[in-house]
Amino acid sequence: MVVKLDTAPPRGMKDLLPAEVELRDQAAATILATYKRYGFRRIETPALENLKLLMGSGGGENEKLIYKVLKRGAKLDAATISEDDLADLGLRFDLTVPLARYYAHNRATLPDPFKAIQIGPVWRAERPQKGRFRQFIQCDIDILGVASEIAEIELILATASALIALGLEQPKIRLNDRRVLSAMATHCGVDFARHGEFFVILDKLDKIGRDGVERELREAGFNEGAIGKLFELFLSGDGGSQDMRLERLARIVPEAAPAVEGLRTIAKAVAREDGDRVTLEFDASLVRGMGYYTGPIFEALHGGGTSAIAGGGRYDRMVGRLLGHDVPACGFSIGFERVVSILEERSGGAAPARERIAFLFDRDDPMDEVAASAGRLRTGDRVVSLTLKRKNLAKQLDDLAGEGFGSYAVFRPDASTQEIKPLARRAAGGGGADG
Amino acid sequence: MVVKLDTAPPRGMKDLLPAEVELRDQAAATILATYKRYGFRRIETPALENLKLLMGSGGGENEKLIYKVLKRGAKLDAATISEDDLADLGLRFDLTVPLARYYAHNRATLPDPFKAIQIGPVWRAERPQKGRFRQFIQCDIDILGVASEIAEIELILATASALIALGLEQPKIRLNDRRVLSAMATHCGVDFARHGEFFVILDKLDKIGRDGVERELREAGFNEGAIGKLFELFLSGDGGSQDMRLERLARIVPEAAPAVEGLRTIAKAVAREDGDRVTLEFDASLVRGMGYYTGPIFEALHGGGTSAIAGGGRYDRMVGRLLGHDVPACGFSIGFERVVSILEERSGGAAPARERIAFLFDRDDPMDEVAASAGRLRTGDRVVSLTLKRKNLAKQLDDLAGEGFGSYAVFRPDASTQEIKPLARRAAGGGGADG
Repeated sequence: MVVKLDTAPPRGMKDLLPAEVELRDQAAATILATYKRYGFRRIETPALENLKLLMGSGGGENEKLIYKVLKRGAKLDAATISEDDLADLGLRFDLTVPLARYYAHNRATLPDPFKAIQIGPVWRAERPQKGRFRQFIQCDIDILGVASEIAEIELILATASALIALGLEQPKIRLNDRRVLSAMATHCGVDFARHGEFFVILDKLDKIGRDGVERELREAGFNEGAIGKLFELFLSGDGGSQDMRLERLARIVPEAAPAVEGLRTIAKAVAREDGDRVTLEFDASLVRGMGYYTGPIFEALHGGGTSAIAGGGRYDRMVGRLLGHDVPACGFSIGFERVVSILEERSGGAAPARERIAFLFDRDDPMDEVAASAGRLRTGDRVVSLTLKRKNLAKQLDDLAGEGFGSYAVFRPDASTQEIKPLARRAAGGGGADG
Repeated sequence: MVVKLDTAPPRGMKDLLPAEVELRDQAAATILATYKRYGFRRIETPALENLKLLMGSGGGENEKLIYKVLKRGAKLDAATISEDDLADLGLRFDLTVPLARYYAHNRATLPDPFKAIQIGPVWRAERPQKGRFRQFIQCDIDILGVASEIAEIELILATASALIALGLEQPKIRLNDRRVLSAMATHCGVDFARHGEFFVILDKLDKIGRDGVERELREAGFNEGAIGKLFELFLSGDGGSQDMRLERLARIVPEAAPAVEGLRTIAKAVAREDGDRVTLEFDASLVRGMGYYTGPIFEALHGGGTSAIAGGGRYDRMVGRLLGHDVPACGFSIGFERVVSILEERSGGAAPARERIAFLFDRDDPMDEVAASAGRLRTGDRVVSLTLKRKNLAKQLDDLAGEGFGSYAVFRPDASTQEIKPLARRAAGGGGADG
């Protein structure tokens, strides 16, 4: 008896078809080539990490979404069974926590500063929803060991260049600093203990507008004075050049002045180097989700969209958790799946052009000669794929064109060279709607 | 209090350093480019599969080594708890079982025949030992939908070309057929039910020699007549051309004749197309481990080594388990980790050459000008990496050379072009042991 098994991939995960992989491979190659020119080098860590490392790493909500791996030989009959007894490994939920471990473990053999590229899958057991998957690719660059703003400048320039190389022209970079946010919150009279909560609501400014933010702050029990002061700060930011806005902010909130000075350094360098291809904008309401950021934070938007296609920031205290002493660190992560879906919409999912030849032969043709003839055609970068001739050749040629073949040849036993013919989208015999 | 965490990767898994990744990426690119020229296209499946699919898939011992993922929200307090209650997903242990599922699920949108490349990690909870890891890369090509030997011919030619392109010249292909093995065992009077056991011992011929195999067969209870007949067959294979040996085998064991004919077709085509670059050898003692093979089986050896660097065969009945009807299928898998370790030994682990320039600047230099100057240097494929100048420049230049930089430039505020100087392995000032 054949028990039919479900052939779908696990819920929330997906199979990638050849054309999808080709587009993704091309995008990844473009990003990697750009990052390498900036002196970053690719590294890899295992997909699995010790659960102790993943838990309490500052990953916030993501820590609740970890896929945990059953410990081998765990005793299932114990009376006091708990998840800790059952699992000691987990699939990584991002590439930053593994990077900090990697750096702490391998620093003796790594260059200083260390400039890493990572591209690879991460896993999160999220509720499945449209466009979100439980396994997805992240593509990060990070600089460890650099305290000055030159790290942020390089990360932003390299990421902007990668986006532009992908065809995502004129990226817009939004920039803020966690220390500016903190100084603003203190200026507004918000208790340090409630800063996090305050930022979470402020983060919604784009989505629910000023009225919405005011209402939520009030509902959360922040007083009118704090709310008033906050929006005074934002209004003070309207109008004038970016430099003037930053200057004003530093005047009103003196505690923010050093961080503001850093942002001006970053903005100036990016504008000078890439000002015609990249827009960089200070945005005092930018928060970014992760708990581990300690300084500048930034994200990239594209084409008038409001959701980021890349995000990052400085996290100077993460490595310290593992090493015992802090190491300055800063990263920028491209949301690879989002970028790919924009590219797919543009191209209609079409595979990149390449010369692909279908080499047709009959069941009775001598296979050694067929293979030898195909081999002679396979010069340079040319794709030559052996294909058994079907009875209905016209239909087959149509199918082959649909599969992305640009031309075909039919094996002839006595020919020293085989004739290559172009494949039309519609094979002959169909009545010639194109003629 | 800082609780220091273990920073090593999980047991049996490894971190990859930049130079290792560069060598691996280059090897993967070489293999992929070769396979694409033969008309194969890359696909991807998720790392996780439903446990029901992985279990009973013909993966033999590997099924015992599956990493199982804890079901989310599984009830841990149940009295009748079992592993089935706790886990429903597992990490894939090879790429063939997921490929069969992928084909069954997506066949409506896939070309016919379907020629797939897969390269990606698989996981096995093996006892850690030297050179074996619990996460490792496999690199497979498979042809689904082709019953004739042209599939085997293409797989062998493409794999041999890929190995040669990697610099593993003159690969030796060993070839046999499961049906030949079966016919031989039957000819020797071995019960069909004991064929598997018989093959497992025969498989050791390389390692323990004829005496060892005879002894183990005797110990397993196979009778003298069977053992004598078996070695008669092998002796009949000695001497003469390969074709003559195959002919003799088919004469002595007529049941093997159709399979032998297939092997001769394969051997002839490979010899004709690639005979000067590849050795192909029929070997009646070749077994290959997997339970799912149904026809020709083959492996690739290199440089006088006796352990395979690639292995594969025909598995015509695996897809049927999922689809309800069989689909002819055949694959060849390069042992990527083994190939990489051969390449690493050769190159001494050195990264491929590339023009890498370290661009040195001072803490006080204006960052916008530093970034702009570096950007002007970063033309073509050139790597330009910003690096803060240290006090001991000679020592720093030495370190940079050690990190693979070929040259350096020092930022000068008023220079429109920066002077690029070569980096010697040993920086100046060391006393000139090379001079």
